[in-house]
Amino acid sequence: MDISARSLALHEELKGKLEVISRCPIHTQEDLSLAYTPGVAAPCLEIQKDPMRSYALTRRQNMVAVITDGSAVLGLGNIGPLAGMPVMEGKCVLFKEFAGVDAFPLCVDTQDVDELVRTIALISKSFGGINLEDIAAPRCFEVERRLKELCDIPVFHDDQHGTAVVITAALTNALKVVGKAKEEVRVVLNGIGAAGTAAARLLLDLGFSKMTLCDRDGILCPGTPGQPAHHEELAARTNPDGRTGTLADALIGADVFIGVSRPGMVTGEMVESMAKDPILLAMANPVPEIMPDVAKAHGAAVVGTGRSDFPNQINNVLVFPGVFKGALSCGAMQITEAMKQAAALALAEAVTPAQLSAEYILPSPLDQRATYAVAAAVAKEARKSGMARF
Amino acid sequence: MDISARSLALHEELKGKLEVISRCPIHTQEDLSLAYTPGVAAPCLEIQKDPMRSYALTRRQNMVAVITDGSAVLGLGNIGPLAGMPVMEGKCVLFKEFAGVDAFPLCVDTQDVDELVRTIALISKSFGGINLEDIAAPRCFEVERRLKELCDIPVFHDDQHGTAVVITAALTNALKVVGKAKEEVRVVLNGIGAAGTAAARLLLDLGFSKMTLCDRDGILCPGTPGQPAHHEELAARTNPDGRTGTLADALIGADVFIGVSRPGMVTGEMVESMAKDPILLAMANPVPEIMPDVAKAHGAAVVGTGRSDFPNQINNVLVFPGVFKGALSCGAMQITEAMKQAAALALAEAVTPAQLSAEYILPSPLDQRATYAVAAAVAKEARKSGMARF
Repeated sequence: MDISARSLALHEELKGKLEVISRCPIHTQEDLSLAYTPGVAAPCLEIQKDPMRSYALTRRQNMVAVITDGSAVLGLGNIGPLAGMPVMEGKCVLFKEFAGVDAFPLCVDTQDVDELVRTIALISKSFGGINLEDIAAPRCFEVERRLKELCDIPVFHDDQHGTAVVITAALTNALKVVGKAKEEVRVVLNGIGAAGTAAARLLLDLGFSKMTLCDRDGILCPGTPGQPAHHEELAARTNPDGRTGTLADALIGADVFIGVSRPGMVTGEMVESMAKDPILLAMANPVPEIMPDVAKAHGAAVVGTGRSDFPNQINNVLVFPGVFKGALSCGAMQITEAMKQAAALALAEAVTPAQLSAEYILPSPLDQRATYAVAAAVAKEARKSGMARF
Repeated sequence: MDISARSLALHEELKGKLEVISRCPIHTQEDLSLAYTPGVAAPCLEIQKDPMRSYALTRRQNMVAVITDGSAVLGLGNIGPLAGMPVMEGKCVLFKEFAGVDAFPLCVDTQDVDELVRTIALISKSFGGINLEDIAAPRCFEVERRLKELCDIPVFHDDQHGTAVVITAALTNALKVVGKAKEEVRVVLNGIGAAGTAAARLLLDLGFSKMTLCDRDGILCPGTPGQPAHHEELAARTNPDGRTGTLADALIGADVFIGVSRPGMVTGEMVESMAKDPILLAMANPVPEIMPDVAKAHGAAVVGTGRSDFPNQINNVLVFPGVFKGALSCGAMQITEAMKQAAALALAEAVTPAQLSAEYILPSPLDQRATYAVAAAVAKEARKSGMARF
């Protein structure tokens, strides 16, 4: 059986990948009186007096909502919220398996920004954090921005920021392998959707100053008529001189290619046109922008993809469980840019100098030590910057 | 320590009464590929083709949302959604412990009917059923009615219908004890809020034709200026002659008193004014309308209360886990009046003739056999009436 058939069979057999269990056995009338009426009135009144007590007295302290509108599920596109649920359940499984964080999947049956924002804001107090998932760009930017204003708990669109953090960690370590500095390298990032936009911002903020951004029409250029706001903003930031050209043009002499775009965008010739020891993080799924063996044959020094069947899998499962675990552990009010930066650097440092090689720039996605390193770094930064409640 | 202090200590120690766990261990890359990307695309596409497949491929099949706006939490009143969460978590614990049903608590931070209805409808497809909880009357009636129209899954306001079902079962068995017939007995029901309204409707539908309903101003009377719509409707149905009077007046010669009202409403003298072998189901919490020993001293034949420290505890934990278990087991689209009637009769019959006595009219709230009897009856009725999906 191929993987689709096996996955389908597994889903049929499991009858749901999640389960809500009780931490509170009820065997006696006494148990019932303490967990439910009349005893439960006491924690209710405590929270009424002091809403912060909800973190101590309910599961909110460890609970993340994984919420989608189903508009950009995996590479499947706008399949709707109900059809997106197996992905959301899977994401919740990863939260629990990798970080011990409880996560609950919710599909919201609207793709109207106002309704989506309002619905999520109204249920947000049931949770300690909100992981937005598989919401299409550019709608995802506004949804996240408005929710961050409305909610006093972390709101994190994983497709943007989880991906940005793991790319940053991968690139940080790849540069160590080839012995180049982040301020010096010219980075070409292709595909300026949800993930590409967040990655560009995070890399720029961290001092990767020589960035060229490309999308379907080539190099992003300020003042291009009809381009979306996030393209205009990033074009102005990265291309003030208004350079134009194709992805192939941009890659000439570049040190790094990062793709969050489409299969087959990069050819061997394009790799050969790059600077010495080029790094390619080709994350199109399931088929990368260039296959690792082709890239290597044309001179690539380090290649990473989103796939588990090649070395250097760049997978945001290394990020979101730890980011939320860290945020929840200190009652973070937000996940700030500084917390994302700290997560990226901690993840990079989770690979020891002895482990680091062109074939090993990131920990295995199954390596829980990486998750815990990310969590610790996020909590430390939250406390340092006054974002922690406790 | 008193029960409040002990409950508070338990809540602190538990760190939440619920937990979301994975049914799908992730130890290998293979596990990850099947539960998450790329394998998970297969179940997503199946559901996109046929939304009914969501019942087979996600946890929806066994998952109930327990949702409140916090407007009528226990006897505490409008303490708000956040403060109501310990009750919602407790309710979810009971769903799991008594019926194996997964339930997840959500507090919705609005008390506007339109917003509440819209929010719940938009997330409803994440679940197999919706248990509305602790929403104040009369708002609860409109919220439930509109959600039943909008959603294709069972929507059940437990404060109304769970209470109505358990009262009906208790009364059915109490009548067996005193040897009276439901068509003959005069029933006085005091407190026509959420629970009282649903109980009145269910009892009337089941053939308890001699009902007198009382609220703060005495016997409900049609045409009373300014009375809410549910009072007017029930007054017209139960009091077409426009009889007026106090609760004390209503009780003279009555066979049954049912109270979902306030402590101390019924005196020993009022019990003495009732017909021979009167039944009193006095459910005000935590102090009943009349204490059992007082009622007995004044001639009551059967007394039930909401309390666990007296015989005949009338507790809707005997109802909601089984009702939802039955509804989920057959993919019921609604919980109809006929399903509630079936639940009540099944619960009554869960007490065997050998067990039945004036001190034992209902199974213990801890008796899971009762829950399973209710579930079977609900599923059977759903299938019979074409309400079952499978």
